[in-house]
Amino acid sequence: MTATGSLVRERAAAARAAARTLARASTAVKNAALERIAALLEERAAAILEANARDLAYAEAQGLDAAFVDRLTLTPERIRQMAADVRNVASLPDPVGEMFDVRTLPNGLLIGRRRVPLGVIAAIYEARPNVTIDIASLCLKSGNACVLRGGKEAVNSNRALGEVVQAALESAGLPPSAVEVITDPDRAHIDELLQANDLIDMVVPRGGKGLIDYVRAHATMPVVAHGDAVVHIYVDEFADLEMALRVTENAKTQRYSVCNAVDTLLVHAGIAPRFLPALARQWAGRVTLIADDRALAILGPFVSEGLALERATEETWRTEHLALRCGVRIVDTLEEAIAHIERYGSHHTDAILTEHYGRAMQFVEEVDSAAVFVNASTRFTDGAQFGLGAEIGISTDKVHARGPMALRELTSYKWTIFGNGQVRT
Amino acid sequence: MTATGSLVRERAAAARAAARTLARASTAVKNAALERIAALLEERAAAILEANARDLAYAEAQGLDAAFVDRLTLTPERIRQMAADVRNVASLPDPVGEMFDVRTLPNGLLIGRRRVPLGVIAAIYEARPNVTIDIASLCLKSGNACVLRGGKEAVNSNRALGEVVQAALESAGLPPSAVEVITDPDRAHIDELLQANDLIDMVVPRGGKGLIDYVRAHATMPVVAHGDAVVHIYVDEFADLEMALRVTENAKTQRYSVCNAVDTLLVHAGIAPRFLPALARQWAGRVTLIADDRALAILGPFVSEGLALERATEETWRTEHLALRCGVRIVDTLEEAIAHIERYGSHHTDAILTEHYGRAMQFVEEVDSAAVFVNASTRFTDGAQFGLGAEIGISTDKVHARGPMALRELTSYKWTIFGNGQVRT
Repeated sequence: MTATGSLVRERAAAARAAARTLARASTAVKNAALERIAALLEERAAAILEANARDLAYAEAQGLDAAFVDRLTLTPERIRQMAADVRNVASLPDPVGEMFDVRTLPNGLLIGRRRVPLGVIAAIYEARPNVTIDIASLCLKSGNACVLRGGKEAVNSNRALGEVVQAALESAGLPPSAVEVITDPDRAHIDELLQANDLIDMVVPRGGKGLIDYVRAHATMPVVAHGDAVVHIYVDEFADLEMALRVTENAKTQRYSVCNAVDTLLVHAGIAPRFLPALARQWAGRVTLIADDRALAILGPFVSEGLALERATEETWRTEHLALRCGVRIVDTLEEAIAHIERYGSHHTDAILTEHYGRAMQFVEEVDSAAVFVNASTRFTDGAQFGLGAEIGISTDKVHARGPMALRELTSYKWTIFGNGQVRT
Repeated sequence: MTATGSLVRERAAAARAAARTLARASTAVKNAALERIAALLEERAAAILEANARDLAYAEAQGLDAAFVDRLTLTPERIRQMAADVRNVASLPDPVGEMFDVRTLPNGLLIGRRRVPLGVIAAIYEARPNVTIDIASLCLKSGNACVLRGGKEAVNSNRALGEVVQAALESAGLPPSAVEVITDPDRAHIDELLQANDLIDMVVPRGGKGLIDYVRAHATMPVVAHGDAVVHIYVDEFADLEMALRVTENAKTQRYSVCNAVDTLLVHAGIAPRFLPALARQWAGRVTLIADDRALAILGPFVSEGLALERATEETWRTEHLALRCGVRIVDTLEEAIAHIERYGSHHTDAILTEHYGRAMQFVEEVDSAAVFVNASTRFTDGAQFGLGAEIGISTDKVHARGPMALRELTSYKWTIFGNGQVRT
């Protein structure tokens, strides 16, 4: 099917119409749709994998890199995980209707904020097909309709997943248009979506700087972006050496193709002579280090033991690697580390490893990122890991939502006031 | 002084630089600056009134309407009120550093959201000079710098008020550039501010649809708008008649030039024959009614008793009067009232007057406005009245903040996670 521009607008209009129904759907009905999505993912796993195989064949023919292919790949286990994630969303409390900040004013007015869906969410994202299911299930649970435009490399996977979601909506008695998956790769659709502020309440772009900048410049509705993530770990002079090796190992290698994997290690000069040789032995043959001159001096001898080592450039510090590559720079002070993060970072996730209380607290105070860790792996920046159930993305913006965006971040509220004839004097 | 475009950008850059200091300023220092603003407002009252008199003379020479002149006017009492409002902001809890949603995850990570300032807020607004002080004091308390661009008719008042604020900042040891008041009336400054997304984190336009649409189309940073307010009261068949007269009186006449004054009364046909004659007697000689044909039939006889009466057009229902004028329409059902509000309203403030529990709850459920009242005056939609201390505006948007925007609505948060070596498995 080739959707023309006006067809995309029609599908956004269909989502808008469905949003009114979805906003009032009961928790039970929404959960029934979610349970059905999970069941259909499992029932149709073979067909989904077959669709995904076509996308993978295309990606390999195009010579796309390993990290990209990893993000695009579905496996039986990943499909089982998607289904489990959807069941998990079904198990979460429904945010719609929740009252908060409720109190009685001195004049007797009972006032509170009542959570309501935003309306229609548009998402524009890249390779990972599971994002389609994550966003659809979180929007559904929070009473929002959505228009999803995934990467052109994932069209077959996304079409199969969109069919699962629409079939599940229908079987639960909800309008299938509540989740519109746009699989036509024409980029003009993005422009048309960004113009439709009468139909779409918020757009969430997920991707590189080019995509985010483009969406910000052209969107006529609020944008909450899931942007670049140049992630830092500062290994302080007072870090526990064993913990530092374990946490950096996890932050780089547990899954390297995702946004919360570490990109740059900032190592205090006081611990570098002990930490870097141990790191070199740990990563020899596995992770390429891209080091500044001071770190090179320590790391150089380990090349003969199989360490892949490169010399850093200014560009290194601005790079989100999404690969088994990691920048290393030696700093003389905490302040120098913080200044580096401020200058080169993307305010996504940054961590300090230290046993020094004052330095830990100063790092937390002064590093202005969506997630700031003390003595833990950066890989935890994730809606499920944070106990939010799931996420539609990780906001690198400050307005509306920051960090993992889960159910609450997909709602607004209305002030609700119960009186008995009060007037203002 | 004539600021050129690049000077405006320089002033925004100065605000950006000041924001870093302000974000870390202690509550005591910020409160000292606020107390000093209040004291200087009182000390310099004569000079401020003199500046305001020049603005008023200009407005009268331009033949601007009474509602506009009312909003522009400062009096000794209004200046005292401004000082009292600033002292009230000083007395409010500092939102910065507040931790919320704090919990310990099963893996032992201690996680929470920590409130942080947004950075630099730009506000673009119209006549009322007290808005300059309201926004400056709320931004200061919440650790944000701001760039304020008031109406061209209020330049003398705003310049005098801006000098008060900058003197107070300086005396508290804070950078005066934390509050930049742009008084040059050149409209090109607005375009330049809207392009400066490297310097400004959020823009808050306050005004009519023309201004809001312009800002949305041209802003490159998040917009939270204080837009039109076509405010409805639905007088249900089961309303308490005496309460309905008292609440509508208050909602229209207590201060008619403000956004939360009522614009349209939707009157159930079952109560119209009792309510409208009583309303006609109450408002004869004071408030002009603009009525649909069915209401005209009831109200017509009261013209001889001094009632000013006009026939409504389609345009009536879309009008924010800001004057002693009020639309009146008879409806046959609650659903018809809700459909009218959905079609013509601006989702700002709407009220139902009824003693019928089910209808009250249906109205609250189905009317999707920033503030929804049962049996109380719409005039309460206000940050101070809601117990928030004050407001920089009333958001008619759904993203980030809705309804009165006070201290909390001027903040973001960062996720802060304390671990002891946790890694992701």
